[in-house]
Amino acid sequence: MRQSRLFGKTLREDPKDEVSINAKLLERGGFVYKTMAGVYDYLPLGFRVLRKIESIIREEIDAVGGQELFLTALQPRDRWEKTKRWDALKDIMYQFKDKSGREMGLAATHEEALAEISTRSIFSYRDLPLFVYQIQTKFRDEPRAKSGLIRGREFLMKDLYSFHRDEASLNEFYEKADGAYRSIFKRCGLTAYVTEASGGTFTKQFTHEYQVLSDAGEDWTVYCGHCGYAQNKEISSLKDDDTCPKCGDVMKMARSIEVGNIFKLGTKFSEAFGLLYADEKGEKRPVVMGSYGIGPGRLLGTIVEVHNDERGILWPESISPFRVHLIEIPGKMSPETVKKEAEKMYGDLVAKGAEVLYDDRVGLSAGEKFADADLIGIPWRVVISEKTLEKKGVEVKKRGEKAAIVMKEKDFLKML
Amino acid sequence: MRQSRLFGKTLREDPKDEVSINAKLLERGGFVYKTMAGVYDYLPLGFRVLRKIESIIREEIDAVGGQELFLTALQPRDRWEKTKRWDALKDIMYQFKDKSGREMGLAATHEEALAEISTRSIFSYRDLPLFVYQIQTKFRDEPRAKSGLIRGREFLMKDLYSFHRDEASLNEFYEKADGAYRSIFKRCGLTAYVTEASGGTFTKQFTHEYQVLSDAGEDWTVYCGHCGYAQNKEISSLKDDDTCPKCGDVMKMARSIEVGNIFKLGTKFSEAFGLLYADEKGEKRPVVMGSYGIGPGRLLGTIVEVHNDERGILWPESISPFRVHLIEIPGKMSPETVKKEAEKMYGDLVAKGAEVLYDDRVGLSAGEKFADADLIGIPWRVVISEKTLEKKGVEVKKRGEKAAIVMKEKDFLKML
Repeated sequence: MRQSRLFGKTLREDPKDEVSINAKLLERGGFVYKTMAGVYDYLPLGFRVLRKIESIIREEIDAVGGQELFLTALQPRDRWEKTKRWDALKDIMYQFKDKSGREMGLAATHEEALAEISTRSIFSYRDLPLFVYQIQTKFRDEPRAKSGLIRGREFLMKDLYSFHRDEASLNEFYEKADGAYRSIFKRCGLTAYVTEASGGTFTKQFTHEYQVLSDAGEDWTVYCGHCGYAQNKEISSLKDDDTCPKCGDVMKMARSIEVGNIFKLGTKFSEAFGLLYADEKGEKRPVVMGSYGIGPGRLLGTIVEVHNDERGILWPESISPFRVHLIEIPGKMSPETVKKEAEKMYGDLVAKGAEVLYDDRVGLSAGEKFADADLIGIPWRVVISEKTLEKKGVEVKKRGEKAAIVMKEKDFLKML
Repeated sequence: MRQSRLFGKTLREDPKDEVSINAKLLERGGFVYKTMAGVYDYLPLGFRVLRKIESIIREEIDAVGGQELFLTALQPRDRWEKTKRWDALKDIMYQFKDKSGREMGLAATHEEALAEISTRSIFSYRDLPLFVYQIQTKFRDEPRAKSGLIRGREFLMKDLYSFHRDEASLNEFYEKADGAYRSIFKRCGLTAYVTEASGGTFTKQFTHEYQVLSDAGEDWTVYCGHCGYAQNKEISSLKDDDTCPKCGDVMKMARSIEVGNIFKLGTKFSEAFGLLYADEKGEKRPVVMGSYGIGPGRLLGTIVEVHNDERGILWPESISPFRVHLIEIPGKMSPETVKKEAEKMYGDLVAKGAEVLYDDRVGLSAGEKFADADLIGIPWRVVISEKTLEKKGVEVKKRGEKAAIVMKEKDFLKML
């Protein structure tokens, strides 16, 4: 991609109405645009990161047997009356009437929808277990939305739902889902602690949350840095400097970001919708359900909170919008030669299948181009200038490291 | 995919509240679920078709230089006041207040959003032309929504927006977009006529619509079957049996489905949002815009309207949820042998990278399995039964053709 053609430009200044680091850096870098508080548009750079996060999620969820589908945001009131969540969620659910006077809302989650739809798909023990998921937009009328992409009023969610004949089957899948979640966060460059938490309107059982330590979070996690044992502060009797009940090391406390959660729902939703299956004896029993959420946009915001410095973002390679940022600095002596070499290397990189953002913009100083590169945060910065031509090579620098080395183009291609 | 594990089952009867062929077949086939009139969930089978249509669209739009992004559904009222479309669209736009009393709506289209966002990206003639697009959910409070997936209240839209320095540049891209659109429809197995039509609230100029001839449509197209010239009945003085003004053949008239449209927007939106660029002399001029829409879900519904028979759907290979429907009919003589052979062939097909739906369900008759296969409409049906084992082969039938032939498994794999 030629940077001169890229839709979305960097901003010199922090946006005035943002307090969170992720929103400041993502807006300044041209990754997102803020339409309202908690409502962000993804511009091409941000969309590329989002798609990579989604791909990692799809791979891991498909690997545990997930089938992808795509449900609607518009929801009829009567569906939500069956679980009494029309009123229970009224503070965060956008609810309104259409032109004909019918009451409807925008889905804040999809347990009701899936329980209803599944009555057409689940009849017998032979149909179980089943795992379905979607990556789809959710809406929540959050009273405070000051954390950039971490707490949105409109946001993407990967929501997975599992259906089982009994608790044993649910527990078996719950472990697999936990494994998939750990892989997803790790592949996205995050260390997540698993904590127990309360189940809200979803379930009376405890649930599990995945917490990434960060000042930008709204939660508190008491954690053991040694063995990884952790609890959500809300339900924990443990305090800072207490002894870890698992390994005896010292517990620490930190303001964390919830990047995912998994719930054992039991039969609350299946009973409300008459979602029953016939067992081997023909007896009808309610289906046991679980639900499992990750917000790809929140994940993106969290990655920025964790991977940044005073100059900008440091994307992990797995989800960076591009792998290489190729920068031409034409100079005054032989700008045509520099341009020619840069174009040649761009062609070579593209031919090798490397994802390259090529800064071919005219009229900018080297300093301005380097500042943009640090802000955007692509892992490999490659500079072609008069200086590098003299040394018959290209200057390669890893984002976040100070040392830049000059190497032959072919050696860099080999290294990639 | 094993059909015994597939989420979404076929229904024996037509759904009672549907009149359109596409909704009847797609619901009966387990492709979609109806949450409300005009509001359909995509189950795994339908989602697979949708993803294939989206891939074709992405390939063709990327090829003409489109950059993908993803904009928000929630829209603040003040943004739409700038073009006076808050009132102009109030009959079809879902508009409501959030908990803090702020007025907002759900985007029925995104010209306003893009014109506003582009003021951060377009400053100079050097930044033009630019082409951006998204595949994203739109909401329209349609008074009648009886056409299944063809007229939705919530539906996916591929909307492309182009930005230009002048009409000449717009016209140049308009031709390219037209070419991309023709490729998309052709690759999806549709013949689309291009007609002139009125621009509604978008533009005072005429626009172009892509119309597929079908009884399920809400439009009328006067067309020449010989040279392809066509006009929308609304603005045409031509009638059935008139002479084609291009080639002199006889014009025909038919109830058609609009599967896409392209608009020259001029400077209406850029002037409303102060979207200006500096030309070579530094003079500020309004950006000239175009917009280009295709509904992937409507396309899916249209394909079903055009490709069906009394038994069910006939998917074109390019967008079929699977390429092969492998069916085991265990019989009574040697059910284990049939099962073993079917499992082996399923493994062979998967190893070859073929997309296979494997009907491994137990307790169904051959007739029930064949009826489901015809309803679902996968192009190649392959049957393994006692009969085919005797003949040392598999029975291959193309959907829509009567003749089934027995061939060796390896010959079928080669043919694929």
